[in-house]
Amino acid sequence: MRFDPTSFQPAHFLWDFENGVATITLNRPERKNPLTFESYDELRATFYNLDHDYSVKAVVLRGAGGNFCSGGDVHEIIGPLTRMDHNGLLRFTRMTGDLVRAMRACPQPIIAAVDGVCAGAGAIMAMASDLRLAAPNAKTAFLFTRVGLSGADMGACAFLPRIIGHGRAAELLFTGRNMSAEEGLAWGFWNRLSDNLFADARALAGDIAAGPSIAHAITKTQLHAEWTMTLDQVLEAEAQVQAGCMQTNDFRRAYEAFAAKQRPEFKGD
Amino acid sequence: MRFDPTSFQPAHFLWDFENGVATITLNRPERKNPLTFESYDELRATFYNLDHDYSVKAVVLRGAGGNFCSGGDVHEIIGPLTRMDHNGLLRFTRMTGDLVRAMRACPQPIIAAVDGVCAGAGAIMAMASDLRLAAPNAKTAFLFTRVGLSGADMGACAFLPRIIGHGRAAELLFTGRNMSAEEGLAWGFWNRLSDNLFADARALAGDIAAGPSIAHAITKTQLHAEWTMTLDQVLEAEAQVQAGCMQTNDFRRAYEAFAAKQRPEFKGD
Amino acid sequence: MRFDPTSFQPAHFLWDFENGVATITLNRPERKNPLTFESYDELRATFYNLDHDYSVKAVVLRGAGGNFCSGGDVHEIIGPLTRMDHNGLLRFTRMTGDLVRAMRACPQPIIAAVDGVCAGAGAIMAMASDLRLAAPNAKTAFLFTRVGLSGADMGACAFLPRIIGHGRAAELLFTGRNMSAEEGLAWGFWNRLSDNLFADARALAGDIAAGPSIAHAITKTQLHAEWTMTLDQVLEAEAQVQAGCMQTNDFRRAYEAFAAKQRPEFKGD
Repeated sequence: MRFDPTSFQPAHFLWDFENGVATITLNRPERKNPLTFESYDELRATFYNLDHDYSVKAVVLRGAGGNFCSGGDVHEIIGPLTRMDHNGLLRFTRMTGDLVRAMRACPQPIIAAVDGVCAGAGAIMAMASDLRLAAPNAKTAFLFTRVGLSGADMGACAFLPRIIGHGRAAELLFTGRNMSAEEGLAWGFWNRLSDNLFADARALAGDIAAGPSIAHAITKTQLHAEWTMTLDQVLEAEAQVQAGCMQTNDFRRAYEAFAAKQRPEFKGD
Repeated sequence: MRFDPTSFQPAHFLWDFENGVATITLNRPERKNPLTFESYDELRATFYNLDHDYSVKAVVLRGAGGNFCSGGDVHEIIGPLTRMDHNGLLRFTRMTGDLVRAMRACPQPIIAAVDGVCAGAGAIMAMASDLRLAAPNAKTAFLFTRVGLSGADMGACAFLPRIIGHGRAAELLFTGRNMSAEEGLAWGFWNRLSDNLFADARALAGDIAAGPSIAHAITKTQLHAEWTMTLDQVLEAEAQVQAGCMQTNDFRRAYEAFAAKQRPEFKGD
Repeated sequence: MRFDPTSFQPAHFLWDFENGVATITLNRPERKNPLTFESYDELRATFYNLDHDYSVKAVVLRGAGGNFCSGGDVHEIIGPLTRMDHNGLLRFTRMTGDLVRAMRACPQPIIAAVDGVCAGAGAIMAMASDLRLAAPNAKTAFLFTRVGLSGADMGACAFLPRIIGHGRAAELLFTGRNMSAEEGLAWGFWNRLSDNLFADARALAGDIAAGPSIAHAITKTQLHAEWTMTLDQVLEAEAQVQAGCMQTNDFRRAYEAFAAKQRPEFKGD
């Protein structure tokens, strides 16, 4: 059955869709919204489905009950992993990495709205989002080292240094310590702190949803694709994709609106 | 005719050359110094010419009349682009990217001195400079999204995350919002804010012009060339270029001056 | 003779080893601990030796007498370099780069504890460490330009932009100016300022030494290896190495301790 954002009813999280903005709410508040094998898989499938539905223009990712996400459930994930063989473990780590790949593959900007606990795979999901808002009580920990694991989890050794700098990333990954909301703002992890977190995240998502979605998808793609390009490759790639954007109706309409001193309307075509 | 910095009279901006420091002043103050097809092209040609004139040791890039640059002129550039075919558009986007390539290819450090409006291609020129000073009133916007375009313009998706971090770059490119001077300083976009902008930029350029220009050119090149090198490639590349610097007269004279407790004089040989 | 951290007696610096933490103290305080050809070489050999001794879990790198390191000795290094031929110079620059390679190759996190003067190759050693603590009086200068050399020294053009951002790195490398302790903290060069520098560095090293050393070694490796990987390469590499970590006894014991509400004990196996 084809994915339909207006009727989608996921089993492992809440889904809301309004005015082009989808909201995903992790919803096991009594455990601070941990992930399970099943919710990992459904999140991954959902982000991949978004690649084919252009009515969704932006995504807000949040947790229920005052916390974002406590990461992989200790009893439902960590325990079983200690009894798994190499192939089973690799299947798991590849699946978790594939959630990040799905978040980067979908064309919609993802806005993480983070309050309370944001730990382990929860911190990864915030990191792998495009924009990040936090409540002042947000505590973010890449705590893999605390359970004997490396910081090389779901892309953290590549993403985190590019967001907050190599030295700060190293500290968070070697120590597993909490990053406070204030630190995260000063370091560029959070785009903004907000006392009105979900409303602000929805408003930002609404603004982005009202923008040029073809262009936004290109911005999202290029911000990662250019990690490993030379300067010459960068300039040629951007020349190509921007020439494409200049052939969209959104670009033409924006010029016409500007010339008529009106506010441009973007339709994603 | 060979490029001569002492007699150069560009058609589309002002040029000044004194004590090894060239100053380029964008000069259509009544429109906040927008770029046109012709000024893009002349800027590009000028930076390429600098690759062959070692009497110019540093460049200051500024705007006239209290603003830096408002970007591509809406009527002279944006309008015509909406009527252009794919090949014409690609010719344009490649030409704009080639301005960035020219700014990176010339051996002279470029110091942007930014006040007032710094938008679109203006923000790109600041970004593609080597050092950046701003007046407290500088407002910088990578506003491509506002006209329906992507943030993948003239290298922004590669440069901007490396200067201010991936998360802040994403916000500026997805929203097109202004970055204030204070934000830009805190984020590492500006090296310094100054109430005495042009004098400070000229003084900094003068200090750099009085330094070892062969070594400066290598620093400039390597800061970009090493984006995509592995650690081993980095260490070998730096071993090679630094061994070259150690064979310059500037290096020998600096040692001799130091041993004699004198101030070293650099001559660029 | 095999390297033994309990009996190692280096000729050109002090060595201390206790509770899994090795401390290297540069010890020519009357000259602010400059490097010589011999101390470069012995440091390099020591870090390579650490690759084979897993009883050392973390390293503290410091200077004696209130300063960290003044860089290559002017009379013992800079002078001779001015009289060396190309092959000799390249042998030297490759040897200095090889010290950085050795610091990155050993599995132990290296914590630089920096006070006073931290200049030239001293600044490089701080930069090439994994974590960096500074006293409020630390003055750090990548002053190569002051002696006519480029900023492309021992990896600086690759490391420094990733730690403090491209624009700030460019300023330090083009001007050679001092970075104050406060700047370095705000920019992410220092992880922390401390009035109790060596005690704090030792305590941090002790915490890391008490952690999962196989996982730490992977974090250290991946933070650099992923500089030049694409997103897909990153996710596959992290899936592979993390699946490996999940087969360590440290991971299993951490889960068991957690389930029993005890503090995990890591043994590095």
